[in-house]
Amino acid sequence: MSDNRRSVILRSRPKGPPTIDNFSLETEPVPQPAEGEVLTRTLWLSLDPYMRGRMSDRASYVPPTEIGAPMMGETVGEVIESRDPRFSPGEVVLGAFGWQSHIVTPADRLVPLPKGAPYSAYLGVLGMPGTTAYSAMKDIGQPKAGETVVISAASGAVGSVAGQLAKRAGARVVGVAGNSDKCMFVQESLGFDDCIDHRAVMDLDAALQDACPDGIDIYFENVGGDLQQAVFPRLNTFGRVIMCGMVAEYNDTKPRPGPNLMSVVRKRLKIEGLIVTDKPERFAEWRELAAPWVADGTLAYREHVVDGLENAPGAFIDLLRGHNFGKLVIRVGELTRGQ
Amino acid sequence: MSDNRRSVILRSRPKGPPTIDNFSLETEPVPQPAEGEVLTRTLWLSLDPYMRGRMSDRASYVPPTEIGAPMMGETVGEVIESRDPRFSPGEVVLGAFGWQSHIVTPADRLVPLPKGAPYSAYLGVLGMPGTTAYSAMKDIGQPKAGETVVISAASGAVGSVAGQLAKRAGARVVGVAGNSDKCMFVQESLGFDDCIDHRAVMDLDAALQDACPDGIDIYFENVGGDLQQAVFPRLNTFGRVIMCGMVAEYNDTKPRPGPNLMSVVRKRLKIEGLIVTDKPERFAEWRELAAPWVADGTLAYREHVVDGLENAPGAFIDLLRGHNFGKLVIRVGELTRGQ
Repeated sequence: MSDNRRSVILRSRPKGPPTIDNFSLETEPVPQPAEGEVLTRTLWLSLDPYMRGRMSDRASYVPPTEIGAPMMGETVGEVIESRDPRFSPGEVVLGAFGWQSHIVTPADRLVPLPKGAPYSAYLGVLGMPGTTAYSAMKDIGQPKAGETVVISAASGAVGSVAGQLAKRAGARVVGVAGNSDKCMFVQESLGFDDCIDHRAVMDLDAALQDACPDGIDIYFENVGGDLQQAVFPRLNTFGRVIMCGMVAEYNDTKPRPGPNLMSVVRKRLKIEGLIVTDKPERFAEWRELAAPWVADGTLAYREHVVDGLENAPGAFIDLLRGHNFGKLVIRVGELTRGQ
Repeated sequence: MSDNRRSVILRSRPKGPPTIDNFSLETEPVPQPAEGEVLTRTLWLSLDPYMRGRMSDRASYVPPTEIGAPMMGETVGEVIESRDPRFSPGEVVLGAFGWQSHIVTPADRLVPLPKGAPYSAYLGVLGMPGTTAYSAMKDIGQPKAGETVVISAASGAVGSVAGQLAKRAGARVVGVAGNSDKCMFVQESLGFDDCIDHRAVMDLDAALQDACPDGIDIYFENVGGDLQQAVFPRLNTFGRVIMCGMVAEYNDTKPRPGPNLMSVVRKRLKIEGLIVTDKPERFAEWRELAAPWVADGTLAYREHVVDGLENAPGAFIDLLRGHNFGKLVIRVGELTRGQ
């Protein structure tokens, strides 16, 4: 254990889009776990758009990160030292948080991961993003056969699962994604019925009209911006809007106007916000339900792997620009013991 | 039966606020019922803000009235002639529709009214508006003890019932109404905890802040406009917005921007539209539940009575301006037989 710990620190708060200067990489001795704690060495770090909220000091659903503190993020780690009888060195666990190479965590926050599925999948398709998609469809969207479901950020970690769940329910599923490669993936690998490349179409309204001739019953909102404005007038009576994120507006310094809400009355729309941690029981439910689908290949997913903790800030900046393609994970370390 | 039938006809579609010229009064012979139909003579006609939607030809949740056709509205009427065994002359019934002195209706659309409560109450506190308030609180709002509930158009037919139901659930209830007499009624007769006179306050934001120091858990939306903008930032986490109407914007010729929806994600808000006829079972449920409360005086209500069908257009124009005080009903005729 002669390693040092490397941490990505929030150095300053961004105004608008984050830049590399908002982060710094710091090195210090690896900390020691106290009684009841576990030291992990990070294998995989998850980067997700919600982390932009933590970089600001305005109210958000996650508390802001203090200046000088490490950035927070879910990891998969290998147990290096355990002062709790439930964990032993060499085990692989979920639940240590931080853009850090080594993390000390109270043992009761850790979940041991079974062998079988790739460990990184527990940060994506089987983890928080997959569970978000599951809860979105189960608790709010409730797609029915024959309905039309529009999924924004369709090739992403959440959207890709949400659309596949809507397909399983028999709905017509239309994705919206940011380039032709993503659209090809959405249609060919994920099996969506159609996909709109929002950066290529000249007229988003017309493209939605073409792709959704019977209107839109469910809109899974991850992006906001122009797409939200284009979707609203096409929502059908009793339409549902699952408000999961508005990444296109996260860097705005003042909020844009939203859609006029008179149509909510007229069409009896339901617009509901979702944060996956509100229903913590969904995590284990989803792992149990979806692990066999990952194993047999009927639930497709794609990862965007970036190597090295030092590259996390740049990868995160690209994520907010939509430059990733699939669930963004940082490979921070390799497993020391054979799996 | 030597009477003529008088009808208020839609003569032209309003651009912006309706004017008297959009209506005309026509006279023709009283129609005769066919087999299975009932002829009623109207005693009471209900005027409600939703009728503004029928005057336009843009899509609404109620189909538009044709130019030259009578305006639609719920009535209480006395049976004059029945060609259905279930009804006899002299009975008082709900369910004939029209701004008309005489109406022919298929018998299976009519509901006989019991004696006891004033008949006009079946158009207000026990009728469509009361049922709307009941469904709003039962199906969407679900107020809990200690929560803060804001009711717009608080002295009106719907708001007055909604607020009293929230009080019964133990919530702190704040009304918003359009003058000091209405606010006095809302606090003293309806028992709301506070009431904001939105025409008198200089700063609506500050007034809401004062009246709702713990934020807003439920907003019952009947008006839209500035109040909606002021309420949104004060909604608490897991707040509910019941979208029932936006009367302040009904005369707009182009829609105003709505609130930015990022807070829906952050606070997990639920914004849901309600039209009472979607759950028709609520009507009978509510009549049964609330009739004893009307009888024993524990459910307060107020009517704004205007005499004469010919005065319906002017009264309706005033209703959209908020010049009524209580449920607006038109006394079209008197009961011919003793009750």
